[in-house]
Amino acid sequence: MVMAKDSTRFSIIRNGARLVHSKGYNNTGLSDILQAAGVPKGSFYFYFKSKDDFGLAIIDHYWAFINHMGETYCSDGSIPPLERLAGFMDAYQKHFERMDLRGGCPIGNLMQEMSDLSEAFREKVGDVYSRMQDRISQLLKEAQNQGDLPSGIDPDRTAQFILNSWEGAIMHMKLIKSSEPLKVFRQMVFEQILKQNR
Amino acid sequence: MVMAKDSTRFSIIRNGARLVHSKGYNNTGLSDILQAAGVPKGSFYFYFKSKDDFGLAIIDHYWAFINHMGETYCSDGSIPPLERLAGFMDAYQKHFERMDLRGGCPIGNLMQEMSDLSEAFREKVGDVYSRMQDRISQLLKEAQNQGDLPSGIDPDRTAQFILNSWEGAIMHMKLIKSSEPLKVFRQMVFEQILKQNR
Repeated sequence: MVMAKDSTRFSIIRNGARLVHSKGYNNTGLSDILQAAGVPKGSFYFYFKSKDDFGLAIIDHYWAFINHMGETYCSDGSIPPLERLAGFMDAYQKHFERMDLRGGCPIGNLMQEMSDLSEAFREKVGDVYSRMQDRISQLLKEAQNQGDLPSGIDPDRTAQFILNSWEGAIMHMKLIKSSEPLKVFRQMVFEQILKQNR
Repeated sequence: MVMAKDSTRFSIIRNGARLVHSKGYNNTGLSDILQAAGVPKGSFYFYFKSKDDFGLAIIDHYWAFINHMGETYCSDGSIPPLERLAGFMDAYQKHFERMDLRGGCPIGNLMQEMSDLSEAFREKVGDVYSRMQDRISQLLKEAQNQGDLPSGIDPDRTAQFILNSWEGAIMHMKLIKSSEPLKVFRQMVFEQILKQNR
């Protein structure tokens, strides 16, 4: 019974998360979600108090994917930290290309769409965004400790700038349906910003 | 009669553009637009074939504002080009602060929301975005001609990176309701990226 319950809830989240990723949160109706998951309305309300309750749950789902990518590409201490960061970003570029450059970053999408509309979304998206930023910051600190990054670089501010710039590049990728913005971003970050000597 | 016609159409656009800026395009219903402009449905359809026809028209409205800001801050040849670019960005930061860091960039919002949903929006937003990018690129070229920017910097790629990074910083500003991301962006761009010596 627990299995069945978890599996229906998970199916609603997984299918709903995919819909929201491609259409936007407000543009996805409850009926779309029910249809995608193949469940009746009563079943939805058995698992979620409201559409927003579901919306907040899919943020955890997006985070689980991002965190998995982070663990996969950023945690192997035998690889130099900046190479891990580059590998993480390259893996995401391939992921976006497999999705035909559609969808973009689900966290960036909700950040853009929901920040002015819901405090609950703003808080939860903000929490995930901070964790993404922290991971980049940790890699920069490691690189500094290993002498691979000039000590004059502020890891926290630089991590914030890199993540924001990446989100902007992903948005532009979606607009022009080309991965060129990601390539320009990568070159600017790894061949210029992280090679500063001041 | 021409005056009256233009003024009603303009009122629908101006009020509608403000709504879309604060709520998102798909989240703004036709009834919201009619109510904000104080016109009946028949009047709306006298001026616009459809909601999308209206949506495309507000992109021109947003562009008119951005272009006006550009003309105001970027065209005075007696000011060094990079100072003009910084002045333009500072003016926008003040503008965002006056709006309580809500709304963000209306073009960035539509880029994020509509790129996968409508080819007509994607094309029109893409056109405006190219023009924004070109303005930054022109300033970088001018700076290079005046010897204020190292010749090794590629103006087009750097302009693209700066604009994308700015859009990412504006999105983050909206999320954390702080202008700190814009300050970090400004420092990274003007004290690091545009001071490269390679």
